[in-house]
Amino acid sequence: MNSPAMTGEERMLAACRHAPVDVTPVWFMRQAGRCLAEYRELRQRYDILTLAKTPELCAQVTEMPINAFGVDAAVMFADIMLPMEAMGVDFMIEPEVGPIIHNPVRSAADVTRLRVVDAEEATPYVFEAIRLTKQRLGGRAALVGFSGAPFTLACYLVEGRPSRDYARAKALMFSEPAVWHQLMGTLTEVIIRYLRGQVAAGAQVLQLFDSWIGALAPNHYEEYVLPHSKRIFDELRPLGIPTLHFGTGIGGMLEQIAAAGSDMVSVDWRVPLDVAWERIGTEKGIQGNLDPTMLLAPFEIVADGAADVLRRAAGRPGHVFNLGHGVMPETPPDSLARLVDFVHSQPIGARP
Amino acid sequence: MNSPAMTGEERMLAACRHAPVDVTPVWFMRQAGRCLAEYRELRQRYDILTLAKTPELCAQVTEMPINAFGVDAAVMFADIMLPMEAMGVDFMIEPEVGPIIHNPVRSAADVTRLRVVDAEEATPYVFEAIRLTKQRLGGRAALVGFSGAPFTLACYLVEGRPSRDYARAKALMFSEPAVWHQLMGTLTEVIIRYLRGQVAAGAQVLQLFDSWIGALAPNHYEEYVLPHSKRIFDELRPLGIPTLHFGTGIGGMLEQIAAAGSDMVSVDWRVPLDVAWERIGTEKGIQGNLDPTMLLAPFEIVADGAADVLRRAAGRPGHVFNLGHGVMPETPPDSLARLVDFVHSQPIGARP
Repeated sequence: MNSPAMTGEERMLAACRHAPVDVTPVWFMRQAGRCLAEYRELRQRYDILTLAKTPELCAQVTEMPINAFGVDAAVMFADIMLPMEAMGVDFMIEPEVGPIIHNPVRSAADVTRLRVVDAEEATPYVFEAIRLTKQRLGGRAALVGFSGAPFTLACYLVEGRPSRDYARAKALMFSEPAVWHQLMGTLTEVIIRYLRGQVAAGAQVLQLFDSWIGALAPNHYEEYVLPHSKRIFDELRPLGIPTLHFGTGIGGMLEQIAAAGSDMVSVDWRVPLDVAWERIGTEKGIQGNLDPTMLLAPFEIVADGAADVLRRAAGRPGHVFNLGHGVMPETPPDSLARLVDFVHSQPIGARP
Repeated sequence: MNSPAMTGEERMLAACRHAPVDVTPVWFMRQAGRCLAEYRELRQRYDILTLAKTPELCAQVTEMPINAFGVDAAVMFADIMLPMEAMGVDFMIEPEVGPIIHNPVRSAADVTRLRVVDAEEATPYVFEAIRLTKQRLGGRAALVGFSGAPFTLACYLVEGRPSRDYARAKALMFSEPAVWHQLMGTLTEVIIRYLRGQVAAGAQVLQLFDSWIGALAPNHYEEYVLPHSKRIFDELRPLGIPTLHFGTGIGGMLEQIAAAGSDMVSVDWRVPLDVAWERIGTEKGIQGNLDPTMLLAPFEIVADGAADVLRRAAGRPGHVFNLGHGVMPETPPDSLARLVDFVHSQPIGARP
């Protein structure tokens, strides 16, 4: 790209505020991870939680994709379970599986035992890592902080491990709504403190990951989840930091997700971006939505897919290019770098 | 229910043809399975494939839910991998996991090696089981035959085992479209023969299961899948047998699924039934769509959920009540029986 008019940080923050951009900003969920050889090398010496809890290492990993791919945003390297530790949740991260919780939450008594502490006491290392990363970035990319959303975290806590259908969590939700809402309320409080702490440390954009929300019917989302997610965005709004709300499989509930009140909605590839934008209204920003499995194909295919996403965004402000879900570990890093160049090479005004 | 005006068979077939019914017909995907104690007893003596391949046992299992729950349709007890055996696919069914394929299909040569034989030669036991079940049912319930759809079967063949994201199958689809279309075409031919054989043996309704289709973006569905699924419905249409097309996570592609040409679309709980019906057009029938995890809750919750589904169907002809996906193994059988009674107790004309 020849002499860009904006830095990555400026570009990302402008798009998040619906302001004009030189080209579309781009970053990838899970960009700091197994697709990078440099990361895999570090992982031979440290386990995931050690990386996440050691601010210097965490900042180093968070910065890697800025250097490797030239993305416009750095997303904090962290596990969504981190803020659960100080709540009294005893977990480990099993490689190739995900979080395993030794004391799952399945009763009113289990919920009552969950502790809510100050964020600085719970995850000081996350905030220190944000400060260090901010220095390393030096304005080259915007710093995205994040948290799991109450539903997705509740699924992990109730199931005790990743699940295909979240049957146990949903059975608790349907059968004992009072216990469910207490659990969701507790998680919501912890999430708000955690995200406020990230902003205080320097995060410039916040993303709420509701990865498993697509397991719900829209009316059940409204009844059991929306009030909690909405509270998060309501309480964050005064901070003036752009918010992103991510979910997968939300084609049936885009309107409800939008109603939770984030500035932007992050959609997966299952809904065409133009259709999604029409449904949530163009006053809201949108992030997405290339199918991450396309990156396992030759780059011409990737470029075709990216061009289609950009065409559907129709040059509107408020579009952040991303994948519809995280980068797959087997993705060729070179394709990610070329994809960033491709998105940056497409003039905003000249789209078909 | 006092003196019903129709038998289960009449009710199910009438609804499938958009004709008037006394009450809404109801059956459940995976109704003949682990939720039934009688089935689990049989399973202690026989493995799944033995049950499926022994016509007398298969007919017995297929009939069980008619007696236990009073459903209006009996769905053939079978594994979607059965027609793959004569193609030269070497598989086993691993309990708690699903089909494991020892020789996955990953290249043009692998596809070329797949055999297409006469259905009578491939799965004679399925057709014999259909004949025996028809006798056992004696008109109490309609007999639903089924097959996996080309995409879902291709996912199994390429991945070699159940997967969360079907990345390998989709990578083949994107990277080698010619190989992909050849694989899909071969599967389509086998599926057409298999379903025609089921009709010749006595199946009265056919369901095409595209369980994993929700992994695709709508435009990729149109390009890589729709022509094949459409060919199946086109070639079955002259038989005059009602067809059902099932998928999960299809909220973003209902229009494309409808375009494949089945008489009815079976939707999961992720799209409200009234919204789904509006999108596909009321001239097409609809099946669904209670969230199967609701059945793990007390029956009052189940009844509320079922009432909501019926309300959204608004008393229209062409609605078959079902779950949005298969019965979960831990479902209390009593709740299924009460759910059938509940659906049958709701007058068609008197819905709010």
